[in-house]
Amino acid sequence: MDERRGEDADQAAGTAHVAADATHGLAVLGMISFLELASFSRLAADASLAPALEQRLELSGMARHALDRMARVGSRISELGGEPTAAMTPFSGSLVEFDSRTVPSTWWERLLKAYVGYGVADDFCRVLAGAVDPTTRTLVQDVLDDERHARLVVELLAAARAEDPTLAPRLALWGRRLVGEALRVVQEVLQRHPALRELLPVAMGEAPEEAQQKLFARLTAEHSRRMDRLGLAA
Amino acid sequence: MDERRGEDADQAAGTAHVAADATHGLAVLGMISFLELASFSRLAADASLAPALEQRLELSGMARHALDRMARVGSRISELGGEPTAAMTPFSGSLVEFDSRTVPSTWWERLLKAYVGYGVADDFCRVLAGAVDPTTRTLVQDVLDDERHARLVVELLAAARAEDPTLAPRLALWGRRLVGEALRVVQEVLQRHPALRELLPVAMGEAPEEAQQKLFARLTAEHSRRMDRLGLAA
Repeated sequence: MDERRGEDADQAAGTAHVAADATHGLAVLGMISFLELASFSRLAADASLAPALEQRLELSGMARHALDRMARVGSRISELGGEPTAAMTPFSGSLVEFDSRTVPSTWWERLLKAYVGYGVADDFCRVLAGAVDPTTRTLVQDVLDDERHARLVVELLAAARAEDPTLAPRLALWGRRLVGEALRVVQEVLQRHPALRELLPVAMGEAPEEAQQKLFARLTAEHSRRMDRLGLAA
Repeated sequence: MDERRGEDADQAAGTAHVAADATHGLAVLGMISFLELASFSRLAADASLAPALEQRLELSGMARHALDRMARVGSRISELGGEPTAAMTPFSGSLVEFDSRTVPSTWWERLLKAYVGYGVADDFCRVLAGAVDPTTRTLVQDVLDDERHARLVVELLAAARAEDPTLAPRLALWGRRLVGEALRVVQEVLQRHPALRELLPVAMGEAPEEAQQKLFARLTAEHSRRMDRLGLAA
C-alpha cells in the first residue's frame, strides 16, 4: 500500500474526523512544556542582565513561575499516559534559529523580545488547546493566564520611553522583526508536527486550507493589540 | 574628631568584644542571599547550554532550589529586622569581576566553574556563620547542605574523562585558576565589609592577624578535597 496515499486520505478527511485524542493532547502539552522551559531560560538570562537588583529579583521570580507551569503541564502529560521529558523532546530545537536571528542589542530590545515572543507562542498554544480534551484545555488556559511579565514590560518600557523619545520608533521596528520571526517559528512547528497540524482546522473551525491563513491573521491581530498596549506601532 | 582613628580603635578591640549582633547576622545573610541569587543565574545559564534536555531540566531544577534557599534566607533577614533586598544590595557587584576573569570556554569548564566557585563561597559562608546567632547558624548550615549539584558534576565529569583522557590535565589547570580567582573575591569581600571582617576572628578562634591567613588555608584545603573527589590535581 502507498503510505503517502493513506496520509493524504487522512488529511483530506482531517476536519471531519480528527477529534482530541491523547496523541494530540500530548503534542500540545509537550510543546507548552518546552516553551515554559525556554521561558524559564530566557527570563533567567534577562534577570541576570537587569540593571537593578529589584528587577533582577522580579524576573528571577517569574522564571521560577515558568518552571512551576512546566511542572503542572508535566503532571497532565503523565495523566494522559505520556512521559514529560519525552513529550518535550521533539520541540527542544524549535527556538534555536529564532534566538540566533533575534539577538537583542539592548536591555529594552531584550524585554520586548520576551513580550512579543511569549505573546505569539501563548496565543498559538491557546488556539490549539481549543481542540483538545476539556481538562487539558482548561489547564492550558489557566497556565497561560499570567499577565505579570506583560505588565512589567509595559511599565518599564513606558518609563524608558518617557526618558528617551527616540526609543519608540526603534522598538517599533524591532517589534516588527520579532513578530515576523515568531510567525516563522509557528509555521515551522506546524510543518514538523503532524499532530498539531491536524488540530488546527478543528481549533479554527475552518477547512485545512483556510485554517493556517486564519491562524496567522489572528496571531498578527493579537500582536498589534499588544504593541498598542505599549504605545508602539505594530 | 578623626573618623579614621575611631575606626582603627574599633578594629583593635575587634576580637575581644565583637559578638554576634543583628548587624553581623544580617551581613552574613545578605551575602548568602545574594550568592543564592547568583547561583540561580549561573545554574539557569548552565542549564540553557546543557547538551541534553535531561541535564537542562536537572540544572533548571537546581536553579529553582537556589531561589528557594534565597527565600529561606530572606525570611530570616526579615525576622532579624532587615529587608531582604536591602541586605543583598551591598554584595550585588561582588562577582562581576570574578565572572569576567573566568569565562568558561567549554561546557566542562562551565560545570567545573560552578563546582569550584560554589565550593569556596559555601565554605566561606559556613565559617562566618559559625560566629552568628544559633538560629541563623543552623539555617545557614541547613541551606548550604545541598550536595545535588556537586554530585551531578562529579558524575558528568567522570563520564567525560573516561571518553577524553586529555580533559583531566586541562581541567586541573582551570581549577587552579578558578580557586585563585575565588579566593581573591573572598579577600575583596572581607576588605569591603567590616561586619564580615569583624566576625572572622570570632569564627576562626584566632587573633585578627592570623584569622584571615587561617581562613585561606582552610578554604584551600577544602578545595583540594573537592578536586580529589573529581580525581583532579588541585
